Amino acid sequence: MQASFTESQKETIHRLFRSRRDVRQGFTGEEIPKETLEKILLAAHHAPSVGFMQPWNFIVLEDLEKRKKIHSLFQAAKKNERQHISAEKQELYDSLKLEGILESSINICVTCDRSRHGETGLGRSQQSNMDLFSTVCAVQNMWLAARAEDIGIGWVSIISAEALAKELNLPEYVEVVAYLCVGPVESFFEEPELEQLGWQERLDIQELIYFETWGQK
Amino acid sequence: MQASFTESQKETIHRLFRSRRDVRQGFTGEEIPKETLEKILLAAHHAPSVGFMQPWNFIVLEDLEKRKKIHSLFQAAKKNERQHISAEKQELYDSLKLEGILESSINICVTCDRSRHGETGLGRSQQSNMDLFSTVCAVQNMWLAARAEDIGIGWVSIISAEALAKELNLPEYVEVVAYLCVGPVESFFEEPELEQLGWQERLDIQELIYFETWGQK
Repeated sequence: MQASFTESQKETIHRLFRSRRDVRQGFTGEEIPKETLEKILLAAHHAPSVGFMQPWNFIVLEDLEKRKKIHSLFQAAKKNERQHISAEKQELYDSLKLEGILESSINICVTCDRSRHGETGLGRSQQSNMDLFSTVCAVQNMWLAARAEDIGIGWVSIISAEALAKELNLPEYVEVVAYLCVGPVESFFEEPELEQLGWQERLDIQELIYFETWGQK
Repeated sequence: MQASFTESQKETIHRLFRSRRDVRQGFTGEEIPKETLEKILLAAHHAPSVGFMQPWNFIVLEDLEKRKKIHSLFQAAKKNERQHISAEKQELYDSLKLEGILESSINICVTCDRSRHGETGLGRSQQSNMDLFSTVCAVQNMWLAARAEDIGIGWVSIISAEALAKELNLPEYVEVVAYLCVGPVESFFEEPELEQLGWQERLDIQELIYFETWGQK
């Protein structure tokens, strides 16, 4: 039997969940120590994966010229997205800092190799997106491991995955799952930035739990 | 500035990543204390979500008759999946225990409300599956929080999401993301079950890391 966690260790773990943030501002640009980055990627590699497929790869980007190109993909996508934002929220939307592509120390693109170990496999013949979901689990492990090291991560989702795939020369069987801005930060917000800035309130968890069937309290 | 984590706390966190398992056997069926379940769900609720959308719901299933119906959905899906498994692996596939729907204490279906806070929103107009991915992050937080409490979780992906949605009366704008078997377990495997049983080896992480572009070491 593997060892259990003590009450104090559990408190540490729950503090980690509560204090992880999606970071878009305050990146210092300092270098991430090599062993710290390795620990963060190793945490990702210990994520669960369907059929133990481990479909992920990690592309570490440092080159500023390349990042500038990717930043321009973000800008184009943001312009597209603005049209979908409701009129009363557009001013707030414009004021939000939504990525740290250039200021963060590095960017990491996390991809999913959809053909790894063969076309289909255990656990993903019936739900075809399970390999993508496994890769997301790896991203969440990275995010938490980074927070433990005082390294901020921000997920840039306002960007075309197809354009990114082209920019990074991904083979056609590999998909972008997450484009991350990664690096030391001045501080972590006490609450999610979008909550503090009035974009959206935290929901009451009791409202989100049902019993036996949808809608039943 | 939020407090940092000490070296010893970081070790605890990395032990958590390493010791989390996808559990399919050894569920004791004992009741999960109410406060433990609440802590696990609260960890899920602290996952990141695109535009702070919090698109998740948690349907807790205890009723054994209902679980038997869902178990029969698994059996049908496994029969379908077997046809996709390569000939040399079919015998091993047949021998694997792939879910603990009936023996676990409870099942939890984690869903994604794709229309929460309006049809589109910040961060998901350009990548439409970001709300599903946010929900997966919540699942991964649950999984880790459960492990900290010595509670096992197994994700059942060999099942039709459409049939599950019907069984749980989900509205059409709500999708199943994960069907989980949850409860105390006799023990946690030292290594992933599929690794120990010879289904798939762990990949070398160094082979999975590229620099600046796909394939570049």
